[in-house]
Amino acid sequence: MNRKLMWKDTGKVEQVWKGPVFNIDAVHRQSPDGREHPMVVCRAPDWVTVIPELPADPSAGKEEPSFLMVRQFRHGSGSLSCEFPAGVVDPGETSLDAAVRELREETGYTADQLIEIGNINPNPAFMDNTSTTYLARGLRKTHDLDLDDNEFLERLEVSSSAIMEKMGTGEYHSAIMVQCWYWYLKYCRTI
Amino acid sequence: MNRKLMWKDTGKVEQVWKGPVFNIDAVHRQSPDGREHPMVVCRAPDWVTVIPELPADPSAGKEEPSFLMVRQFRHGSGSLSCEFPAGVVDPGETSLDAAVRELREETGYTADQLIEIGNINPNPAFMDNTSTTYLARGLRKTHDLDLDDNEFLERLEVSSSAIMEKMGTGEYHSAIMVQCWYWYLKYCRTI
Repeated sequence: MNRKLMWKDTGKVEQVWKGPVFNIDAVHRQSPDGREHPMVVCRAPDWVTVIPELPADPSAGKEEPSFLMVRQFRHGSGSLSCEFPAGVVDPGETSLDAAVRELREETGYTADQLIEIGNINPNPAFMDNTSTTYLARGLRKTHDLDLDDNEFLERLEVSSSAIMEKMGTGEYHSAIMVQCWYWYLKYCRTI
Repeated sequence: MNRKLMWKDTGKVEQVWKGPVFNIDAVHRQSPDGREHPMVVCRAPDWVTVIPELPADPSAGKEEPSFLMVRQFRHGSGSLSCEFPAGVVDPGETSLDAAVRELREETGYTADQLIEIGNINPNPAFMDNTSTTYLARGLRKTHDLDLDDNEFLERLEVSSSAIMEKMGTGEYHSAIMVQCWYWYLKYCRTI
């Protein structure tokens, strides 16, 4: 059956747009019925997202875990968005390096443990990269925020129940964050 | 605090790439500290995904629901991908129209009920569109498949437990589908 579904690479690729963060290629592939087509592929660096968990502490009256998030303007939606700390994997970095760096830069925290809980393609239809989700535990505030010139953000601490209520709505409108939260719930055996 | 986070539109927008499905604009915005920057925005049509649920039928030995999915080659990942029926909202269509059409074209089924269970931005960082998820119930096979010239796909029926096991891994590697499945679990009060 795969022969009826698989497209073949012809080796012909043209870069049709070069941008500051990602490029667009036309990748010429041969369809299962033998016709050649230029298909649009967005070549992007891999992404990482870190879910920084601050555990429940019932003896101090904190009955559920909370999470560090960042609130920032996003240029695609043209609106404010509340997200877990996230960013692209820079050249020479591993995904884990990028996770450590983004957590530090966007929250000022360092984690004793960074556990990979998900690795996925943001959209196989046109993206060629992967998005890896890490759960950060054992958090300590070690640094001041260290933001890029164009980053303006506010750090939030959001309870588990507030995330369950809001995720996917209002300022929590990022599909990437919803799938990160799915990995968290799966890791914690809630689903 | 919003004044420290909000970017302002300057009204200046240039289309920097025009593609067959989406375009790229440089949207000039003023940062919270007053500098103007061209920001990359991907202008894409809205998307819909349909989760076609075939209910459990214990009297016939079917102990759990199953779902219609499609297996197809995806040009971003360059690999086969198992996904719920999905596509873009065509000009003149509502999201619901597109959901009815995609379900019929990719599976040959018609639903008595299409329930909107999620509406989200695929990636607020650079996408300007929305992705709406519908749950399809009361399914009847009414049509043959009706595929675009460049669509080659295989229809699958996948059990609920198989989706829970595989979602986000292997051929089930689409972040968009993971967030659709999150909406389904939330709608069914599993999470």
